[in-house]
Amino acid sequence: MNLTQITGGVCAPIGFRAGGVHCGIRKNKSKLDLAMIASEVKCTVGCVYTQNKVKGAPIAVTKANVKDGFAQAVICNSGNANTCNANGMEIAQQTCKLAAEALGVQPTDIVVASTGVIGQPMTITPFENGMAPLIAALNKNGSSDACEGIMTTDTCKKEYAYAFDIGGKACHIGAIAKGSGMIHPNMATMLAFVTTDVAISSEMLQKAVSSVAADTFNMVSVDGDTSTNDMLTVLANGMAQNPQIVAANADFMDFCTALDTVCRSISRAMAKDGEGATKLLGVNVTGAPTIQVAKKVAKSVACSSLLKAAMFGADANWGRVLCAIGYTDAEFDISKVDVAFKSKAGTVAVCKNGAGIDFSEETAKTVLLADEIEINIAMNDGTAVATAWGCDLTYDYVKINGDYRT
Amino acid sequence: MNLTQITGGVCAPIGFRAGGVHCGIRKNKSKLDLAMIASEVKCTVGCVYTQNKVKGAPIAVTKANVKDGFAQAVICNSGNANTCNANGMEIAQQTCKLAAEALGVQPTDIVVASTGVIGQPMTITPFENGMAPLIAALNKNGSSDACEGIMTTDTCKKEYAYAFDIGGKACHIGAIAKGSGMIHPNMATMLAFVTTDVAISSEMLQKAVSSVAADTFNMVSVDGDTSTNDMLTVLANGMAQNPQIVAANADFMDFCTALDTVCRSISRAMAKDGEGATKLLGVNVTGAPTIQVAKKVAKSVACSSLLKAAMFGADANWGRVLCAIGYTDAEFDISKVDVAFKSKAGTVAVCKNGAGIDFSEETAKTVLLADEIEINIAMNDGTAVATAWGCDLTYDYVKINGDYRT
Repeated sequence: MNLTQITGGVCAPIGFRAGGVHCGIRKNKSKLDLAMIASEVKCTVGCVYTQNKVKGAPIAVTKANVKDGFAQAVICNSGNANTCNANGMEIAQQTCKLAAEALGVQPTDIVVASTGVIGQPMTITPFENGMAPLIAALNKNGSSDACEGIMTTDTCKKEYAYAFDIGGKACHIGAIAKGSGMIHPNMATMLAFVTTDVAISSEMLQKAVSSVAADTFNMVSVDGDTSTNDMLTVLANGMAQNPQIVAANADFMDFCTALDTVCRSISRAMAKDGEGATKLLGVNVTGAPTIQVAKKVAKSVACSSLLKAAMFGADANWGRVLCAIGYTDAEFDISKVDVAFKSKAGTVAVCKNGAGIDFSEETAKTVLLADEIEINIAMNDGTAVATAWGCDLTYDYVKINGDYRT
Repeated sequence: MNLTQITGGVCAPIGFRAGGVHCGIRKNKSKLDLAMIASEVKCTVGCVYTQNKVKGAPIAVTKANVKDGFAQAVICNSGNANTCNANGMEIAQQTCKLAAEALGVQPTDIVVASTGVIGQPMTITPFENGMAPLIAALNKNGSSDACEGIMTTDTCKKEYAYAFDIGGKACHIGAIAKGSGMIHPNMATMLAFVTTDVAISSEMLQKAVSSVAADTFNMVSVDGDTSTNDMLTVLANGMAQNPQIVAANADFMDFCTALDTVCRSISRAMAKDGEGATKLLGVNVTGAPTIQVAKKVAKSVACSSLLKAAMFGADANWGRVLCAIGYTDAEFDISKVDVAFKSKAGTVAVCKNGAGIDFSEETAKTVLLADEIEINIAMNDGTAVATAWGCDLTYDYVKINGDYRT
């Protein structure tokens, strides 16, 4: 399978357009706050959602809309999460209706999403005002504007696309996503919208989405807080004209690889752009007794506030890695564990068989001053592997979140 | 039962002396780094320990020593956790031997503990040099020095004592403890040493300790990191001459109340002095369907990084309270939940039936500027209650932990 990174984001696949406008949900008029992605034809759809009991109203509306396995467009606002609002359901439904009328499709073919502050009053007015300009703004180069429209505290756009072949046909997959706080997905994800022109049944698409999300988005944590509005949606419009994927065959595996690649790229980007973050942390666990243990250990380390603060300070305090491995809720033998820090500046082994070993503090400092750090944990107790992504804990995280609403 | 706060810390009970010295584990000579608490006579003992799989060597040695239900003294150093050290067991055992010889007791009557950096090399030399001065320093007013000797990043001493009656006899209970990072106990606690002159069997003492720890220390979180060296030890020397407590009778209940009071005082103090903290957060859950749900919800809210940062900024971002309630791993009806913020400056209700209500931002700001804040969560779905303690997340937490080792 030949997988190549390309440009174009969610518009890279055949038959998708996107755009973003400022509709007035945000006070800052220079910040786009409403985004749309639309397919020329109806798509099969796969989704995973937050497991938080507090759910944004758009989650409920989208769930109902995609129940039949089909959708044609995504509409998403930033600046207000439409969560814990008395009129939230009404607004989410009206938004679908406005979008559907403007696009000439059914309201139940709209995926609706919101992100921003929880529990802030909201009206339909900005959506009414913004819909015509938004439809007018849809174009083949609109992925970047759509991406800006869904950003909250993100400092950079998260937009990826790849080209690949299935059944001799040129296929494409693209994505936009937003982080960057309240990031600790639980069988779901943050806001990420993926488009593809691959022909795949709703059933197989959902299988692919659930499987890939478990290894990518669900392995990211910025701050341990699972959002109320997490959503990963994949729209597949079939315009690549490959033989439709309806079973777990080789084509399906290729599609899963492509989906995994784009989701992995976005997961890393989300972690790296975590609120206030200066460093991406990749925690690689190898030699674990089971995949569940590998995942739990990787996430436990990636989530440790103490380790995250040490990484900010480029302090090779490996005892905090051991400590976080140790409080993982799983069964394994801690006395076999080796730990090393790695970055583009080199590798430094710091722990062997669960105990410290001599290492150069100078080398360690150099390794940890890089902006992408890998924490490699060899459990020497099996063959399972997993990777989790996180970021450092910084002054800016506190600053951003000490007064987010104003 | 008449329970009165008194002075004297761990020396308040009859027959206990304590002291602290600088023995050279820390570079800073003005900081005491070795502490001892000793009883005139043998004590029954109750302990709970960290559930982290990575355990400090002193944990293992203490567990073996108190297996018979008896102990007579505590020795504890700060500056080095004696964890993940190849010679850790040997040092912990030698420390017990040195202390026992100096006190004229058996090595198996010593409770040994360490706190500080994990995985730092350690030798027995400072203990050898410090033992004679430490024994010489033991005195009836030594609780405060012992408390200083076990402190790490704590900014204040945590020392409490209470007087009460059991069976017509004047009884006393005292405690010293240290926080203040890597605080997220799991069926155990941080370092806390409690003394009492109550006569109580080892079995009943252990029952009291396990029960009280579950409602006090285990409901505290500073940063979500469960330490490798957590230990709560209670020594009871019986010198109050009350009829020995050997069953779950009224005397036992009175003792549990006294133990709960001292443990609750220390738990609050630990949370308030969490690394970098400027505010104590008390999360009170009422009307929960079960005690387990009440505890889980209270801890989930107390542990939310986003809420903790908002509390630092005195930002009434109640959506983050709802979000953290929502991702609690428990079954309950989120649509019945009410939330209010309370402090000495007043009370402000912010959420009713799971949705936002109008409130004065000005009032909320005033309430949240206090240094002790209560977050009151009424679940309106039963009668169970629980309280968890935490603190705000601040720039100083990041500063302290960005370079802890140097």
